[in-house]
Amino acid sequence: MKFSALGQNLSGGSGIESLMDDLGKALSGVVLILYKQQDQLLLQVPLQDYLLNILEFGWPVGPENIAVTPGGQTAFYFLFNLFGGCRADGTPGRILFPLMPEYIGYANQALEPGMFAGVQPGISRTSPHRFKYHVDFKNLDPGVDIAAMCVSRPTNPSGNLISDAELRHLADIAAQRDIPLIIDNAYGWPFPGIVFGEAKPLWTGQTVHVMSLSKFGLPGTRTAFVVAPPEVAAAVSSMMAVTGLANGNFGQAIAGPLIASGEIVRLSREIIRPFYLRKRNAALEAIAEFFPADAPYALHESEGALFLWLWLDGAKKTSRELYEILKKRGVLIVPGEEVAQAF
Amino acid sequence: MKFSALGQNLSGGSGIESLMDDLGKALSGVVLILYKQQDQLLLQVPLQDYLLNILEFGWPVGPENIAVTPGGQTAFYFLFNLFGGCRADGTPGRILFPLMPEYIGYANQALEPGMFAGVQPGISRTSPHRFKYHVDFKNLDPGVDIAAMCVSRPTNPSGNLISDAELRHLADIAAQRDIPLIIDNAYGWPFPGIVFGEAKPLWTGQTVHVMSLSKFGLPGTRTAFVVAPPEVAAAVSSMMAVTGLANGNFGQAIAGPLIASGEIVRLSREIIRPFYLRKRNAALEAIAEFFPADAPYALHESEGALFLWLWLDGAKKTSRELYEILKKRGVLIVPGEEVAQAF
Repeated sequence: MKFSALGQNLSGGSGIESLMDDLGKALSGVVLILYKQQDQLLLQVPLQDYLLNILEFGWPVGPENIAVTPGGQTAFYFLFNLFGGCRADGTPGRILFPLMPEYIGYANQALEPGMFAGVQPGISRTSPHRFKYHVDFKNLDPGVDIAAMCVSRPTNPSGNLISDAELRHLADIAAQRDIPLIIDNAYGWPFPGIVFGEAKPLWTGQTVHVMSLSKFGLPGTRTAFVVAPPEVAAAVSSMMAVTGLANGNFGQAIAGPLIASGEIVRLSREIIRPFYLRKRNAALEAIAEFFPADAPYALHESEGALFLWLWLDGAKKTSRELYEILKKRGVLIVPGEEVAQAF
Repeated sequence: MKFSALGQNLSGGSGIESLMDDLGKALSGVVLILYKQQDQLLLQVPLQDYLLNILEFGWPVGPENIAVTPGGQTAFYFLFNLFGGCRADGTPGRILFPLMPEYIGYANQALEPGMFAGVQPGISRTSPHRFKYHVDFKNLDPGVDIAAMCVSRPTNPSGNLISDAELRHLADIAAQRDIPLIIDNAYGWPFPGIVFGEAKPLWTGQTVHVMSLSKFGLPGTRTAFVVAPPEVAAAVSSMMAVTGLANGNFGQAIAGPLIASGEIVRLSREIIRPFYLRKRNAALEAIAEFFPADAPYALHESEGALFLWLWLDGAKKTSRELYEILKKRGVLIVPGEEVAQAF
């Protein structure tokens, strides 16, 4: 795996990192200390160690594989620019999204223009009003310009869940090319587990997982974990130090006991997932009830995450126009064309 | 004031920002919501409004002048790259530090090489074992390549406090050149107020102030405020959205009541400042007691912040060597040459 020139620069250690090390401060949330009022020690937990307890997939990872960032958005900002962008040898490195559409929040995160590349999905009609995207491996052939691949699983906004076979295939390609496969677990396992289809987590020498507390109901904690090869985790921690000095400790302190006890996994399975499954089902039922059965509409199979992805074939209005009309009626949708144009 | 091309790109609005706006989420800490456990609303405060109460300097600022960032380190990362770096017209923009040495944490924050420029200080001997740096205005003539100036006040590591006259002079230069004068208040007024000399805060159309809760004793909250012209505050908020989605809300919720009541200012004046003044005085007394009176040492006048800046004239060891020797004895210093080499 190769870092970009900027990534090397931002992650190569710094005076402030040495100073903070000397001062014994926690740069990446290794030790969490929460004070009640301003003087009373409330809690002190080594969060990375606890996180290992719930990575119950048999992954051979240790604390050196884990970096803490202030939320998943920042983790992706670091990872995209760590791998993507101009390399030390002057050649460009790009981030490839093997299955578009992808999360709109990635779109503006590239520090160099032209850093993102996407592959259109293959489309299967699964039933009269349902379809599913899949990775079009025939058209997926990452060249030397591709520095990393990235998928969200499940995917916001489409609700797609890349299958175990697809993920394995992507990991094999990543291994052949010696590039990382970055997997956004914002909605996936082990938390918050907003997954309605079957999905096994995968660890290889190329996988970089990003896990977040946001969809577990704690977005205000700004806490995410990058589980990655040690050199990647160390680089992310260094980028954190240079751009943000240290992580906040309150969110980690709140989440620490939930993670240490494994409660976060139980709550994800027993509370979070059923909650969103009920809402998803109610939405699907409403659509089946109110959309004419012979209308040329189709929904992407809802396999996880929080959105339903609606395809109105032959619509006379753009999705932006539909968005404006519905917004006036107090109904919020995300115009799909905005996702397409953002990248 | 002109933004860099990268700054325009990162701050120019994004799909994710529109989506978050639609969803009614607080992007930059405008509204703070803290939940106790996972369901009980504990506190909801509009922090920017409260902050205005304690900007008791008569500054004509409103909420549109304030952006919240996860700590001062991130605020400077945003500001340096918002103004510095390649501009839309292809010319380079640089950040000028009118009085070196400056805070070592700035050193690795430039996303483009060669972005930082510094001016050596003038030096006055104020007494046999004391000296003071001052801005060498004879050698300060920012060219068209200078996109912003930046000073910390008081300065970590030197303990220098740029005088009111110097600050006014710098602001005049900034106004002539139509560039911002960025002022790092990490140790200054209104909080934490670790200021031992006389310093009046200054607001002009060019000033950009960064205030942080870290040295008030709340580094784990990762909360800082950028008080700036509205277009700069808006750009910082946009950069925050793209790179980090939202600020954490716990720290702001803790600080909110302290800010709303003005307690933060009273505690700074009555607790924080006296605490560090006592420590500073103890250190000065120890140096006077244990350093030979005829030794060629000199301390920078200690006018604020947390460090003493020691000058060992004609020393046979480098400051890095002294650092290694003292570290083995459990004494921590920051080698000054590291500061010089970092930029």
